[in-house]
Amino acid sequence: MSRADRLVGLLEERELDGLLVTNLVNVRYLTGFTGTNGACVVTRDERLFLTDSRYVEQAKQQVTEFERLEASRELVGALAARLRGRAGFDDAHVSVKAHAALAGKVPDGVELVPAAGLVERLRAVKDEAEVRAIQAATTLADGAYERLREEGLVGRTEREVARSIVRFLEDRGADEVSFPPIVAAGTHGALPHASPREVEIPPGVLVVLDLGARLDGYCSDCTRTFATGPLEDRQAEAYEVVRSAQAAAVGEVRTGAVCSEVDAMARQLVQSGLGIGFDHGLGHGVGLEVHEGPRLASTAEGSLEAGNVVTVEPGVYVPGEFGIRVEDLVVVTDRGPEVLTGFPKELVTVDG
Amino acid sequence: MSRADRLVGLLEERELDGLLVTNLVNVRYLTGFTGTNGACVVTRDERLFLTDSRYVEQAKQQVTEFERLEASRELVGALAARLRGRAGFDDAHVSVKAHAALAGKVPDGVELVPAAGLVERLRAVKDEAEVRAIQAATTLADGAYERLREEGLVGRTEREVARSIVRFLEDRGADEVSFPPIVAAGTHGALPHASPREVEIPPGVLVVLDLGARLDGYCSDCTRTFATGPLEDRQAEAYEVVRSAQAAAVGEVRTGAVCSEVDAMARQLVQSGLGIGFDHGLGHGVGLEVHEGPRLASTAEGSLEAGNVVTVEPGVYVPGEFGIRVEDLVVVTDRGPEVLTGFPKELVTVDG
Repeated sequence: MSRADRLVGLLEERELDGLLVTNLVNVRYLTGFTGTNGACVVTRDERLFLTDSRYVEQAKQQVTEFERLEASRELVGALAARLRGRAGFDDAHVSVKAHAALAGKVPDGVELVPAAGLVERLRAVKDEAEVRAIQAATTLADGAYERLREEGLVGRTEREVARSIVRFLEDRGADEVSFPPIVAAGTHGALPHASPREVEIPPGVLVVLDLGARLDGYCSDCTRTFATGPLEDRQAEAYEVVRSAQAAAVGEVRTGAVCSEVDAMARQLVQSGLGIGFDHGLGHGVGLEVHEGPRLASTAEGSLEAGNVVTVEPGVYVPGEFGIRVEDLVVVTDRGPEVLTGFPKELVTVDG
Repeated sequence: MSRADRLVGLLEERELDGLLVTNLVNVRYLTGFTGTNGACVVTRDERLFLTDSRYVEQAKQQVTEFERLEASRELVGALAARLRGRAGFDDAHVSVKAHAALAGKVPDGVELVPAAGLVERLRAVKDEAEVRAIQAATTLADGAYERLREEGLVGRTEREVARSIVRFLEDRGADEVSFPPIVAAGTHGALPHASPREVEIPPGVLVVLDLGARLDGYCSDCTRTFATGPLEDRQAEAYEVVRSAQAAAVGEVRTGAVCSEVDAMARQLVQSGLGIGFDHGLGHGVGLEVHEGPRLASTAEGSLEAGNVVTVEPGVYVPGEFGIRVEDLVVVTDRGPEVLTGFPKELVTVDG
């Protein structure tokens, strides 16, 4: 069953006659189109794709299961005329201004119905080709960690290390990085979203490294925490607590596991081991976007499904002292977790 | 007069009691904040800035003229309570879903009024510090052209050249590139928005190069077309037509020039010289974003103001044969054009 066919199933659940898809990630997922201006409409009987003249040739190659139409750069107006009945639109993506323009152009009797998140529900469950693509992006990123282990970190600035990661991934074929790498040494590691600084990494500290590659559109995401020499006992112990909490949480990842419970389990292990926790979620889905569904978090609803691909990334952050985070990418299956990340999780100490 | 004070003037024109600013570029322009989650409210009497706990320290350094408040990551809800009377919001940026959430949280009697584009109007007129920042980004990009002239292009792939441009700019201090560079050789140059290919650049063709640096937040944008050896007469003549049309259009850039007329002038010179034109606008403003106001285009309204910084970039595109585009960045002054771009516009032939 095609992705558009599965979307029709969701439309029927919501009593929608069709869906206008404007978010380019969702357009790509449904149609295969990778250009920067495209939109589509899916109804029970129609699959319409629109782009402008710049992308007509590209769309001929990429978009084979939709009827292709050419429009001016303002695509939404052209699609408005094709909407019928209860027409869903992505209210999380369409601006108030674009919605007003759309409402002025739909035929009489069309009701525009907020319907964000439908394609995202499909995207949360990966097919085999998608899992292979995420595996390839993950293996590429594993190589960046191997390289960092060989090259060492001491005396390099965080910013230089971050740039060398980007270049390594691009040189080996990545479209780009999934997100700007985090390289956060010593006390800076206590900020979960630290930006790399023009500061040299000293010996004897923990360095949080968080990076991913985008390859053929699909993202990877992996965090490791390296040591740049022997650590105080307290830091080495904290590393083991985070690592074992991470391993335990990975072990819970399987079809039917309750998302909030997987999160709670890792959180309790870190909290009981160290007396402090982490204030971000345990994990998130990864695919065409580096953050997508499902979430593993205390506020997450629902349970895991076979084909979800999620990060598992507990951490600990001691302000003014250090941070630690360990993150793998895991496929949910009926048989349990299938870990895509290959780089080891034992504490890696780089001397140089 | 501060930027927020000037914004109050625009609010009065529109009979607004305040403006909710959510687009991060506009937040940066008004407050100085460069993080990834922030919003502000400007009224005649209040300057409120909100961010979440991750950015509180950074905001203390950057945001000095606004009252700083901390909120959870959902900033808009917290700001909603501070809105009064006729409250403008950015309807081109706020999604239908975010608007519904906002409408549910504003105090009784508050009217949410679509008001996109007000901060953008201020941003179109640069102050001296902004012009200096754009000049610095432009000079950095000039260096990339010098480097390309020295290194040559023949035998390198378009994609490798594009990457070397990115690395050159980053290594010399750019925050990042303003946009992914265009490197389009021979027939590929006939696509105005070509993506670099894994294709080697041959001798004896024209190569369209379009690149820019972002430095301290401000963008540059410059196009040059190089030759990789002796050209057919027709291509060399076409280059001269585009170059002289570009120079003539630059000469028209001054306070009071009608935007659509500057566009028409360049368009007619190219059309009458070559019998074909170009189907993009002649130019656009550049600042914190690489595309902002004002536009130089047949559909543009209004005239140039002192302090506008615009590109002037006519081109010619012969499908299946070649493309040419020449682009400078120009400051509008009462005395005429002040060209920021330093790299020469005579046809550069690189042998290697």
